[in-house]
Amino acid sequence: MHGCCIWLCCGNCRWANWEFHVGFDMRAGTVISLASVHDADADAGGARRRRQVLYRGFVSEIFVPYMDPVEEWYYRTFLDAGEYGLGLWAFPLQPGGDCPANAAYLDGHYSGQDGRPVEARNMICVFERYSGDVAWRHTEAGFPNQLITEVRPDVSLVARMVVSAGNYDYILDWEFKTSGSIKLVVSLTGLLEVKATAYAHADEVAQDAHGTLVAENTIAVYHDHYVTYHLDLDVDGTNNSFVKNIVTAVVRDADADAAADTPRRSYWTVRREVAEREADGQVDLGGGAPADLVFVNPGKKTRMGNEVGYRVVPGGAMAASVLADDDFPQRRAAYCKKQVRVTPYSRSEKWASGLYADQSTGGDGLAAWSERDRAIRGEDIVLWYTVGLHHVPYQEDFPVMPTLSGGLELRPSNFFERNPLLTTMPIGHGRPLVNCSCAGGDSISR
Amino acid sequence: MHGCCIWLCCGNCRWANWEFHVGFDMRAGTVISLASVHDADADAGGARRRRQVLYRGFVSEIFVPYMDPVEEWYYRTFLDAGEYGLGLWAFPLQPGGDCPANAAYLDGHYSGQDGRPVEARNMICVFERYSGDVAWRHTEAGFPNQLITEVRPDVSLVARMVVSAGNYDYILDWEFKTSGSIKLVVSLTGLLEVKATAYAHADEVAQDAHGTLVAENTIAVYHDHYVTYHLDLDVDGTNNSFVKNIVTAVVRDADADAAADTPRRSYWTVRREVAEREADGQVDLGGGAPADLVFVNPGKKTRMGNEVGYRVVPGGAMAASVLADDDFPQRRAAYCKKQVRVTPYSRSEKWASGLYADQSTGGDGLAAWSERDRAIRGEDIVLWYTVGLHHVPYQEDFPVMPTLSGGLELRPSNFFERNPLLTTMPIGHGRPLVNCSCAGGDSISR
Repeated sequence: MHGCCIWLCCGNCRWANWEFHVGFDMRAGTVISLASVHDADADAGGARRRRQVLYRGFVSEIFVPYMDPVEEWYYRTFLDAGEYGLGLWAFPLQPGGDCPANAAYLDGHYSGQDGRPVEARNMICVFERYSGDVAWRHTEAGFPNQLITEVRPDVSLVARMVVSAGNYDYILDWEFKTSGSIKLVVSLTGLLEVKATAYAHADEVAQDAHGTLVAENTIAVYHDHYVTYHLDLDVDGTNNSFVKNIVTAVVRDADADAAADTPRRSYWTVRREVAEREADGQVDLGGGAPADLVFVNPGKKTRMGNEVGYRVVPGGAMAASVLADDDFPQRRAAYCKKQVRVTPYSRSEKWASGLYADQSTGGDGLAAWSERDRAIRGEDIVLWYTVGLHHVPYQEDFPVMPTLSGGLELRPSNFFERNPLLTTMPIGHGRPLVNCSCAGGDSISR
Repeated sequence: MHGCCIWLCCGNCRWANWEFHVGFDMRAGTVISLASVHDADADAGGARRRRQVLYRGFVSEIFVPYMDPVEEWYYRTFLDAGEYGLGLWAFPLQPGGDCPANAAYLDGHYSGQDGRPVEARNMICVFERYSGDVAWRHTEAGFPNQLITEVRPDVSLVARMVVSAGNYDYILDWEFKTSGSIKLVVSLTGLLEVKATAYAHADEVAQDAHGTLVAENTIAVYHDHYVTYHLDLDVDGTNNSFVKNIVTAVVRDADADAAADTPRRSYWTVRREVAEREADGQVDLGGGAPADLVFVNPGKKTRMGNEVGYRVVPGGAMAASVLADDDFPQRRAAYCKKQVRVTPYSRSEKWASGLYADQSTGGDGLAAWSERDRAIRGEDIVLWYTVGLHHVPYQEDFPVMPTLSGGLELRPSNFFERNPLLTTMPIGHGRPLVNCSCAGGDSISR
């Protein structure tokens, strides 16, 4: 089912149960398209066993507003994709450093300012990952004098690009798991934006410095990072619905309780809410009811009668913007007030900050589209997810920052009839899996 | 600074810049104590360069309430540590499966029911991890015709235990990073609790089934997982304070704006709030103002004058309990309504669900202690952090569940004068780092 074989040809990638295309775009960086997964349990016949998951996914924008209000810092509310280009600010990956020794590399191509083709080498790496983690396991202790343990190691495939947007470096990973999950991980590193100051010690700071004194005469300015993904999911076909499975408390009152057949006073159940229009597709992950957010295909059901779906599992970094709605930087990136938005697919709606982000006044961006309140039930819909961080700098982030990660997992949810990893074979008796820095005979301590 | 050498002797572990003790406890499972980190930038003199971080950390409780209210399911509101014992339900780890080939193993010892010592083999594994990730990097494109890229791979140390609490398996990782971070990761797998039903298809479900139909006549019941850590941080000494660095929006009104020297209407700054009493130490991560939650040592400052600290970075799985306060299961695990609580250290306050969890009515647990509202500023304080998941089962979770992870990172925040990874050497010219399943000559596809 999986192993060492990665088939990679002109960006077409086949690995384990996955098949997808890895592309390069000047503005978006990596573009994943036509991702489908093999389902051994699906109806017989080769074609139906390969099932669509993602039509196209890419980072639509990275919004980085700095929080020093003085005029000289006013322009530092960067839209890294729309103003600079994530592909243009990706640089050749360092083999063995940015990506492990087993990585394969893909080049990028785009048209230069003079219209001629430009070849950018080693823009994306693709590698198999074994981190020492477990895909599934169980120890059954229920049999007398017998322990049965089954474990399967977790091996995945990563497609990575690194964008050095001026001072800051974003490591952008697409991780494909044999469980059917796609994990999107943003790792932040690189250099902080700093400003000169007369202060040489925190005791001297007399008024709001708009940042942290990280070294003598050096303030690292407060800022945000919002990495917004455009995820045109096609869960088993084009027409999907966005469902909130809302965890809803049920509390019995004391009188009813006395007569009830159980002492349990409260529990929760799931209230299923199908988003009809775009307004229902806006979710603030920081407030409101806890919910599983699921893209389903209402036309396809499992054998058990559940709608097939993929859900969004947030993996940290869930900040939303706190700027005033009428502030100019916020108008350009108004979509950052909600981490999740769902819109109907439109060919012209690719860039969250608008096609001409540099000159945008907010009229042609994701927030404006999303306000049109179009119907999204059973349509070809797009998930926009924003990974957000309020970045208060600390001294450890200076002069270069240890990586800090956040992201999300797109996880099959009643997509398969059962755990698709069940058929994975256990570890053999050859030389076992390793994942340490000694494995290649090398050490990083030199 | 780091590399292949793990020094492990009777649970004492030294690796890279870390030193700590790994212990075993019948109830808590793994206990990490006296964790300290070497600081090359600290004042000369060997002793002062080794700095305390964590006095003692362990999983205090795992609360798993099921959401079927019928009497036969009433007792299924498990306190896995207090009622069963995480150490007692940990089983020998499978080399090559639960832990990679480069892992070392530790045994556990405890007194059996007859008072005699019991030796439990291979309870905890300790291994170095290289996942293909980056510790820090930057590409500097600011010099004409010159690209300078520096990358350092991320190599860490993991101490792992797997607890198979009946049907369910928890993979509990403590990951020590050379950046000074300690990551706590809970990975959930194993078997769902199911109940028999007459339903064979979702269309037949006539009333709330309290779960998901995952197979014919099989309902996987809704439930929660709350993994509560007791983290007695000693940041550079015993007496610490709990600080909320609250991201606070500043909005200028339009009139003032016209006269101002900047067109920027809004920004955020940090309001520093020191928790005086236990009530200030209770935080609901799902609501309220975004904040960096920091343990600081008010008696120790960096050279720049910032208080030394470690902060909590949530890594997903941030659910809080929605049960009614007077419901019996909730009374026993009342602490699950807030993900973060800070209490003064008390020798008798180890178990969030109380010393005698099985018979507890809530009077001797974390919520009751935390309600005493004791002073916590500049004291020997304890961080209690609950990783929480509302688990709506899906068909993929059946019959065994692919791992789903959540956790937190304890991250140095003005603890070091600068990024402690700066001194890491780049990759050498030997055989480079690998992390794939082929590395050991083995494949998992057999």
